[in-house]
Order: sequence, then structure tokens, then C-alpha cells
Amino acid sequence: MDKRTVGILGGGQLGRMLVEAANRLNVNTVILDAPNSPAKQISNSTEHIDGSFTNPEDIKKLAAKCDVLTIEIEHVDVPTLKTLTSINPNLKIYPSPETIELIQDKYIQKEHLIKNGLKVATSKAIEVPSVESLSQVGNEYGYPFVLKSRKFAYDGRGNYIVKSESDLPDALATLKDRTLYVEKWAPFTKELAVMIVRSIDGRVFSYPVVETIHQNSICHLCYAPARIPDSVQLKAKLMAENAVKSFPSCGIFGVEMFYLENGELLINEIAPRPHNSGHYTIDACITSQFEAHIRAILDLPLPTNFTSLSTTNTNAIMLNVLGEAEKDGELKTCERALATPGSSVYLYGKESKPNRKVGHINVVSSSMVECERRLQYILGNSAELKNSIAARMLQQGKGHPLVGVIMGSDSDLPVMSAACKILEQFNVPFEVTIVSAHRTPHRMSKYAIEAPARGLKVIITGAGGAAHLPGMVAAMTPLPVIGVPVKGSVLDGVDSLHSIVQMPRGVPVATVGINNSTNAALLAVRMLGVYDSSYLTKMEQFLLKQEEEVLVKAEKLENIGYESYLENK
Amino acid sequence: MDKRTVGILGGGQLGRMLVEAANRLNVNTVILDAPNSPAKQISNSTEHIDGSFTNPEDIKKLAAKCDVLTIEIEHVDVPTLKTLTSINPNLKIYPSPETIELIQDKYIQKEHLIKNGLKVATSKAIEVPSVESLSQVGNEYGYPFVLKSRKFAYDGRGNYIVKSESDLPDALATLKDRTLYVEKWAPFTKELAVMIVRSIDGRVFSYPVVETIHQNSICHLCYAPARIPDSVQLKAKLMAENAVKSFPSCGIFGVEMFYLENGELLINEIAPRPHNSGHYTIDACITSQFEAHIRAILDLPLPTNFTSLSTTNTNAIMLNVLGEAEKDGELKTCERALATPGSSVYLYGKESKPNRKVGHINVVSSSMVECERRLQYILGNSAELKNSIAARMLQQGKGHPLVGVIMGSDSDLPVMSAACKILEQFNVPFEVTIVSAHRTPHRMSKYAIEAPARGLKVIITGAGGAAHLPGMVAAMTPLPVIGVPVKGSVLDGVDSLHSIVQMPRGVPVATVGINNSTNAALLAVRMLGVYDSSYLTKMEQFLLKQEEEVLVKAEKLENIGYESYLENK
Repeated sequence: MDKRTVGILGGGQLGRMLVEAANRLNVNTVILDAPNSPAKQISNSTEHIDGSFTNPEDIKKLAAKCDVLTIEIEHVDVPTLKTLTSINPNLKIYPSPETIELIQDKYIQKEHLIKNGLKVATSKAIEVPSVESLSQVGNEYGYPFVLKSRKFAYDGRGNYIVKSESDLPDALATLKDRTLYVEKWAPFTKELAVMIVRSIDGRVFSYPVVETIHQNSICHLCYAPARIPDSVQLKAKLMAENAVKSFPSCGIFGVEMFYLENGELLINEIAPRPHNSGHYTIDACITSQFEAHIRAILDLPLPTNFTSLSTTNTNAIMLNVLGEAEKDGELKTCERALATPGSSVYLYGKESKPNRKVGHINVVSSSMVECERRLQYILGNSAELKNSIAARMLQQGKGHPLVGVIMGSDSDLPVMSAACKILEQFNVPFEVTIVSAHRTPHRMSKYAIEAPARGLKVIITGAGGAAHLPGMVAAMTPLPVIGVPVKGSVLDGVDSLHSIVQMPRGVPVATVGINNSTNAALLAVRMLGVYDSSYLTKMEQFLLKQEEEVLVKAEKLENIGYESYLENK
Repeated sequence: MDKRTVGILGGGQLGRMLVEAANRLNVNTVILDAPNSPAKQISNSTEHIDGSFTNPEDIKKLAAKCDVLTIEIEHVDVPTLKTLTSINPNLKIYPSPETIELIQDKYIQKEHLIKNGLKVATSKAIEVPSVESLSQVGNEYGYPFVLKSRKFAYDGRGNYIVKSESDLPDALATLKDRTLYVEKWAPFTKELAVMIVRSIDGRVFSYPVVETIHQNSICHLCYAPARIPDSVQLKAKLMAENAVKSFPSCGIFGVEMFYLENGELLINEIAPRPHNSGHYTIDACITSQFEAHIRAILDLPLPTNFTSLSTTNTNAIMLNVLGEAEKDGELKTCERALATPGSSVYLYGKESKPNRKVGHINVVSSSMVECERRLQYILGNSAELKNSIAARMLQQGKGHPLVGVIMGSDSDLPVMSAACKILEQFNVPFEVTIVSAHRTPHRMSKYAIEAPARGLKVIITGAGGAAHLPGMVAAMTPLPVIGVPVKGSVLDGVDSLHSIVQMPRGVPVATVGINNSTNAALLAVRMLGVYDSSYLTKMEQFLLKQEEEVLVKAEKLENIGYESYLENK
């Protein structure tokens, strides 16, 4: 796609996946790193350089062979990078050396973010590290606080969580010879991350906001999208975009964030390169973070939705594969993943060593519950791997309800329970409760308004008498609402029928026959069939079975005659 | 995932994509082909062999370095393959040399298929090729018929369509020095293909049935899934599975078929390797044909659904990228593809030469109409690339309707037209027609039964008087059916309301108020929202707008007082 050669400082797994993306586009790459590093393994170019991305001479050798330079790790020699364009004015470096410099020292990064109006955890540089100076920090910030190395920190190495004053000597010993800063503890409930792509002309594209879960300070899992409210997703996305816009650069960036107990978001740190939290994009998004980076730095087209999830229903979990105590022991996990529907294994060509990132696994499904169930099998925590999500959720009596069955009073339950039986028969996950329009109006509003975000697809409402519940719920939700008129002690239910069906133009209620909650549930199943064809298939079978039952009766009637039939009935 | 080394005879694009899949699983590969062939480019192994897959010595050299041998092309030296296990009894060869032999000679392949009860086009071997012998074939088969080379034929090379007797001298000259057979013309309406994976223990997994479109005898497009009835898909799948089961082998197979005018299916030919018609699997299926092959021949796990489309709504078109007359001219097409949502470009590291397969493009979307629209842009046939499918389909007044609006009589149209207006307002593709339960009962059955296969998601029915249409349609389709009671000259529409709403248990009709087809359409939009959240968002906006309108009126009433308000109304 482009005749230019891309040089990559670093040939680890991130470099390897960049090379894979470049290979697909016939983009020539040259790697600077140790011999046979993961990225070099999948490119037979004879131009690769054996050496280090911290060595000025090696970097210059790489630059001499390239038109565009990029990085897969930020711990590179920036002063050398800055001299390169004076040697070759045509050389492009993305991200720019200035951006790498701003990000490389995490304390400078923090100051830069604050200057640009972005929220970060309170922190300060420690000029003279000592028990005295740090104990003063303890008095000011409270415990725990975090003692951090300003540079060369990754996967928790370079961070020390100081839980009390007695930790201070060990903290100082662990991080000796490093330049340090301290950070006030951020009481987060979740760690979030967003991958952002920036084009050469400054456009910014966000991947979905994801949720990372760490174990022993190493990324363990990544949930995409994050299980947080839409409004927080939007806030996180905008914050990440603003953070990336503050750096003079282009290409892909990973923005890590803390989501605090009070709902606030803080930026934790930024990586000016592909990021572990973006590996899910290979399977769950239209374009992977790696291809996005190659396209961005070569100024190749980036259509508007290329960072989206493949479908609006796509859910994914990424699991990092770490080397186990027993060499290659982690391959058992990978083998279980290969046996798991919707799961893909990526190994990096690295020797298995304990706690080393040697690969990752992406699990994709239309439901996060299903992703988690598959993950449990892959992790070896669950022996079974059945196919039906719905069946299992019902079995456990919980899970993610698709249909809400509500009624104005428990006196409606004898009628409405028929709907529940049908939903059980069709293995539809559902919930059932009492919501009264007249006695619990606020509860009704809350139920109607929150239903879509809670994952409900259809609401079945039963009501008798004035029967305002179905219409009122329909007025406050965009979901389809089915109304069941429940027969009362007077007027034979015609009062409720007319109240439910005769809605004003603008707010429809799908009304079924008086007391016929069976049909309400069957209608709900048909509606789910719009979204999931397995329900449509089940409905076809149901109709066929109904037909057969009548045919059996017809045959009997024809055979034994109407009089015997009536007697036997 | 496996310590064994896989040797591949052939290093073209199919080999390259096999290597890419192997790389992801840390599976070591060694390639036999010309220096720097596409597959070798993405593997830095020093063990590759420069040579030919038809040369016995080169094949032996490859075998000496491998535990498992496989092919990316069937034109290999089979006699040598057959000797290899006597040299190394532990060597595995997939597909087996016997299978390659049966397939390599297309006439032997045909005889083998016939012997195994599979339908193929009538053909016979030509022992002595001459104008006389072929003109006798013309008399017997009629024109056109096809003169074919038994071996080494691909991409139309080796085939000659004899349109009349006068073609015979040219046909013989074109295919001279080849062993030949003739084939009766199969009057096909579509060419289909199915990729089949066979595990070492004999299990068989089918990818979706696809439709290939050729240009100048070279595969141009591949539609996945094929645009044929479900029953034909199933038939094609079973036929392909049976064909593959007839060969003693494992790994991936491509089965090409003809779908004839009379509905019959014939097997055209079989490839015992990855196939051009399976390239769409990289983006549209859970596991690509390449990874499937590597996993099958290494006996790695193959879960039940790994050959499925990523989602039940996935549609894909693959476009082959051929070298253009102007060197690299085809990259313009690739660049348009990169600018197109949901499209991915794969280039093979081959030099651009006219008509050479240098890459392919996969276009994926939830709608085939949308895939085709994007394809037109990529091909340079369309200047625009707007995002809204629905808007464009409406604009053109055609496309793929999601909602059917039907009514018992044209006298219902004044009432039902309000539904059409709402659907237009929400950009929902719909169709509208007259279907009478009592006057066109067979038309009604056909409409109800065929609706799901035609892509309809919801049916809106309007009826007056006895109003049997909604219930009868609901009885014959698993789709949700909405009923609008149309007010007649007597009984104020209550007759129709009761007839529509009071359905027996088992067959629901979503009933709305008398004459309120507006609400029927709004309900249909809510139902589509179950499947496509963009409709849900639009419905939320619609509800907000309704609210605002009332608030404006309320403000006016409060400001000017009820008397002036009434006067101004």
C-alpha cells in the first residue's frame, strides 16, 4: 500500500503484531531489537538490526534504512531520536520524540496533563528520597500512597504501594537508584482504558472504553466494552481524546484511567504505542489497534467507524497468557481456549518463563455473560462447556433478563404466570415483579427509563380496571411494550382492554386478548426473533407442534365419531 | 501450541496465509518454493527450501526437516510423496498422497465422485484428441461443451469452452500436449462453493455455502452466505460434506458446485487445500480457513461452531485484487477499500503483473445490500459513500424491506397510510400491498410463509369488519404481527378490535387502537430497536420531541390563559 519502509524500535509482541498488520498491507518493516525477537520472527527481511533501542548507534543504523520510524516501547533513547531529522530531513518519526519525552518520565507526563486541564491523582516529585521525606508524604497524603519510579516502569515494576510508615525502608530499598515521585492513593472501583488513534492531520478516533483487571500488577483480563454506564463511557472517551490531543503526535495511544468510587475519572497514564488493553481489537473491532497504527503513521485512509466493535452486540474478554512455573504449562490454557467457541489464541514466539507475557486469548460473544462463562472454562475453573446461554441462565435462575414481566398488583399474578411459563418453555431469560402505576408511580418511571440500559428488550405488562400501567410504561421507554388486559370483577375486562389498546397516537402498546398473557409471552418471543433467529426457529417449531396437536385430535374425531369423542373428552 | 514443524509444498498466497495462522499459534513452518515467495516473506526461519514442489529431491529435503507435510497447491509430485513415509515412518502427510492423486487428475476425480454417488456434469476422457473425435462429442453433448485438461488446470487455464464446431481447431491448438476430457455444459445459474474441514478422527465441519462470481474464468467476487434458499444451502452443505468424506484425508477442502436452472446441484471440482472462495473467512467467520487447516492437521481442538459466521447477521463479499495493466494500478482499489467502513485489505507480497492475484479485499456488514454498496465504491463505480443504509434504500425507493404493511382492501389505505408516513419518517425500509384473507387466501399464505426468508422483521396488518387478516397471518409466520382495527360503517370498529385482539392462546397479534396505524408503525420501530439500537435511539428522540411539543403548548396556555388559547386555536 505504501513503498516506504517503517522502522520499529523494539521487537516484542507489540512489534510482532504491528509487523503482522504491516505484512497484510505489503508494508515493509525493519526491526531494531535482539536477534530473533518476536517481531523479527515473522518478517524475513535481511535488513533487521540486532541491537538495542536504547543504543544511539543502533538507532542511527535503523534510521538510515527507513522512511518512517515508530516505537513499540517508550523507553527508547530520545536524545538520539531528536538528532535524526537533522541527518535525514525526510525522515518521519511517529510518535514524535517530544511526545515520547513528555510521556517517558511519568512525573513530567502528569505535569503536562495537569497543564492541559486533565484530572490526575495528586502527586509530587521526591528530590531527596528518605524515610523522613516519605513519612512527611504519609502524613500529608495518608496511607496507602504509591512510591513510583519516574522512568522505565512497567507491569507494576517501579511502583511500590506504601501501606504504612513501616513499609518505607523496604520501599526505598526496592526503588533505589531511581528518580522517584509519590502519588496519593486513588480509591478506584475500576481501571479503564481507551485506545485512541490520531491521524497525521489531527483527527482523533476512539476505540471502545474497556475495563482492565490486574493480578500482581500485571494486566490479567480486559473487558470490552467496560461494564459501566453509557454516560461514564462517553466521559472517559472524551477525556482520553483530550489527553491525546494534548501531545504533538500521531499514531495509536493507550490511555489508562481510574474510575473512582465517587464517579470521578482520573487519568493514570498514557502509552504512545499499541497497548495490552487493545489486544481485544484484533477480534472484536473492525480494524485492530495494530493496523490502525500502521495506517495512521503512513497517512493511509481511516474511515469513520473503523475503531468500532464489529457489531453493536459484540462483547469480548481478553486474557493475558503468562508463563507458568512449569515451562510451557500455560499451553494447557491455550488448548482449552482452542476448544472453546468464539475464542482465539495468539502466541508471541517467546520462550516460556514464569510470569512472562507469552500470548493472549480473545473470547468474543454477543453476551458478556457468555464470554465470562467461556473464560471460566479456559481458566480451568469450570469443567463444563455447554452451548445454550439462555438455558444455563435460567438453570441458575439469574443472568441477564431479556423480557420484563410486570403487573399492577399481585392479584394479576394468576393471569400473568402463564406468560412466565411460556418464557420458561422458550428458554427466554426474564424477570417478574410488581410495578403499580397508581401506587408506585416513581418505581414505574424508574423501571421504564432504566429498562433498555439494563438489557431488557421487551416489557410485558398486565393490568386490570383503569389499567394505566402498560400505556404509562410505553410512554417512558423506547422498548416495545405488550399489554395484557386483566379481567376484573365488573365489565368483563373490556374496561381494561379499551384502556390499554386505545392509546393516543405516538405511544403504542401491543395489546393482546383479555387475560391472554400466554399470547403476550409468545409475542415477546416473536419480537426477540427479530434480534435472534434462534427464537424464530423455536417459534416455527411451536407453530408446527400446535398444528400437529390439532391434527391428532382431528384424526381421533374422524375415527371415533363425534359422540364417542364427546364422551371421552 | 505444538512443537512439530509443518512443511508446506508451495509458498504462494495460500501458503502465506497458512504461515500467518501458524505464526499466531507458535507453530513452526518450513516452505518449499522459489526464493522470497509470499509465504517465506512472513517467516524468518533459515530452514526454508528454495526449489520446486514438483522436484523429488526438493520435496525430500523439505520432508527431512518436518514432522507434518501439507500443500497449498495440488500440482505436486505425488510419487515422491508416496515414498516419504518409507524414509520416515513418523512423517504425517495431510492431505494424503492418495487424496492428492485422486484430485490432481480432474477426470479421475470425477470418476471417484461418481463412484461415491455424487452428482457431476456428464463427461468422458478423450484418448485421441482430434477434430473428428471432438465433433462427435459436439453431436452427442450439443454446444457449448467444455474441453478440459485433466491436470495442471487453474483459474480457467486448461479449459476451453467450445461454442460450435468451428472452435475445435483452436481448442485443440490451445490445449495441445495435454491429456484431455470433455464435459457437457452445465446450465448453471450460480456457482457455489463450500469450505469443509475434516479432523484427523474424521469429523467434518462446514463453513457457510458461498456464491462465487467469475470474470474471464478467474474468481472475481465471493458472496458469503450465498444468496440462495436455506434448503439449497443445506443440500449444498451435505453434498460437499459427503464429497469430502469420500477422500481418505484430513485438513481443509474447497468444494465447487454448480447450481442449475432446474434447482439441481452438481459438484464441479474439489481442492484439497485452502481455497480462494474461503478468503472471506478471515473476517467473517470465527476461525479462518487457514487456522482451521493448521489446527486440523496438527490435531488441535476444533470446537463445534468454529466454522460459523461471526454472527447470524454477518454478510461478506470478497473481492479478488488482480494486477492491472499499469503496474500497481490496483492499489487505487485497495486505497478506496481502506477508506470504506468494514473493509479489510490483504496483499500477498507479490509483484504487480496484469491479471495476477496480488491480494483480496473483504467487505463485511450486517446487510448484503450494504456490502454491495460498499463494493461499488471500492470498485470505483460509485462516487459516494454515505453511512445510512436505510436512508439510501428509501431514497432509491427500493432495497430490502424490514417491515411489510398489508391490508385487506384498498379502502383501508387512508387509515394505513399513516403507518407508511411514520416508517418513512424513521427511515425504515418497508413495502406496502393488499392481501385479503377472504378474497386472496393463497396469496395471504404465501406472504406469511415467505416473509422471514425475504428479510421482513415485522408485519403490520390492517383490517376492518370480520378482520381475520392479522390473526391468519400470525398463524402462518413466526414473525411479530401487529394488527390495526379499521373502523367500518357499523359498530365503530369494535367488531374488528375484538376480532383482532381476542386471538386464541398460541397465536398472538399485537393489537393497537382503532384506526391507529400511527401507533402500529411506532410499535414496529420499537420492535426493530430490539435488533438495531439506532432505532431505539431514534425512538427516544421521538418521545422527547413529543414531550417538548406538549411543554410548548403548556407554556402558551399558562401565558395567555385558557380563553385566549381557545380563541387562537
